Amino acid sequence: MHDDSIGRRGWIKLVGGAAGAGAALVVARQAGAAPPAAGKGMQAVPWPYAPLDPDATAERAFKGYLEGHCMYGAFDALAGQVADKLGAPYTSFPTRMFTYGAGGVAGWATLCGALNGAAAAFQLLSAKPEPLVDALFRQYEQAALPDWVPASAKFPNVKSVAGSPLCHASISAWCKASGKKAYSPERKERCGVLTASVARHAAIILNAQHAGKAFPVLEDKATAECASCHEKGGTLENTRAKMACGGCHFNLGTKHPAI
Amino acid sequence: MHDDSIGRRGWIKLVGGAAGAGAALVVARQAGAAPPAAGKGMQAVPWPYAPLDPDATAERAFKGYLEGHCMYGAFDALAGQVADKLGAPYTSFPTRMFTYGAGGVAGWATLCGALNGAAAAFQLLSAKPEPLVDALFRQYEQAALPDWVPASAKFPNVKSVAGSPLCHASISAWCKASGKKAYSPERKERCGVLTASVARHAAIILNAQHAGKAFPVLEDKATAECASCHEKGGTLENTRAKMACGGCHFNLGTKHPAI
Repeated sequence: MHDDSIGRRGWIKLVGGAAGAGAALVVARQAGAAPPAAGKGMQAVPWPYAPLDPDATAERAFKGYLEGHCMYGAFDALAGQVADKLGAPYTSFPTRMFTYGAGGVAGWATLCGALNGAAAAFQLLSAKPEPLVDALFRQYEQAALPDWVPASAKFPNVKSVAGSPLCHASISAWCKASGKKAYSPERKERCGVLTASVARHAAIILNAQHAGKAFPVLEDKATAECASCHEKGGTLENTRAKMACGGCHFNLGTKHPAI
Repeated sequence: MHDDSIGRRGWIKLVGGAAGAGAALVVARQAGAAPPAAGKGMQAVPWPYAPLDPDATAERAFKGYLEGHCMYGAFDALAGQVADKLGAPYTSFPTRMFTYGAGGVAGWATLCGALNGAAAAFQLLSAKPEPLVDALFRQYEQAALPDWVPASAKFPNVKSVAGSPLCHASISAWCKASGKKAYSPERKERCGVLTASVARHAAIILNAQHAGKAFPVLEDKATAECASCHEKGGTLENTRAKMACGGCHFNLGTKHPAI
């Protein structure tokens, strides 16, 4: 379905493994691979990785969120901890630049900053970042999050299912589930705790890939159904997406064929 | 309307300046500001900037797209050219990591990679990146793009209006305008030319800000109308976004109040 130019390899589907409504479990087995070649004058990635403690990663992400918002919180929790363990070349990296992703990039509410920061870290730390992105983004769409809350949290941190990797949809879903407003202190803390949950899961799957172990990737059957017509090789092939269609297309109208 | 925690300052609205359907022209005047403080153990941003030639930036972005896709193309065209001019500390920067944003992050079709890469470069190169993001993203939503095509282009590169900063919506709009498929050679080239157009505009506004000059920022009156109820301080305040609501909410259904 999504056999695009970025490529995807090594996927093994487990028959009958259900992980939620419309979801089947897929497991990606990660073998080692040569780092991508660097372009002229550029330093190659990935840089070396050192396994991370998931709970310590979550704590650091929550702290980082308070200092520099969601994207910085997730990126620093992953790459910043590796920097502390390994030193150079990380010591020269301007980690603070990832504050740009706050609120889905300067409040535009596009891609959730925690996902943007984790994806950036995956590319820096892994020779095969795409399966990590697929696993993390799909879990963010389908799971009730946050699934980790720091001891210092002030609020109950109501769980919600974002249904989308977008900041806007994620916040709307949380506002509905919690009954709280989008600029409330509860929402601000929730995004920090969500950043911590995302960074924690990112560390778990980075560790698994680094160790050559399998990690779970949820499937989205409803989106696969849409993609069968609209994505690569479909009759229409008139768009591109792995993100859940239902995150925005609530109402297909009367002209869309029955599905 | 969007007076969120990231902050926005120094906006001057020009009465009567129209720049498209539902759009008024706003001009941001950029004064110098101290760089943000770096967190513990992190290197501060911004790094030094050197003005860029917009057309050379576009050429480099198109070349970079062919090497590492959209996000890398935009980021490298901006930060990579500054690196070539200024050397350290840029020489140690792993520019190649920004391949992660390809196809709206590993094909997820979330935020357009050209915008993601330009926004990352803004945070690295400017002490006031948010007005640059606002100007670039709104232009991407509202303008017919690409507005710059390299001499080496193979196809006519039909213009389209994305109506959204998202890869998915941008590609769908282009497929409709061009009659071409989402994985066609024409679409692949179009995304390279669009990356070049975005990087070119990013260089123009970065140069303006660096010189203390004004640069135009389009306004979106329809989204402002939605925000008056749904965004900060509205009766509902049940979401967050600067991106155009109409990019996804095509059909408000029968339950939504008339607007």
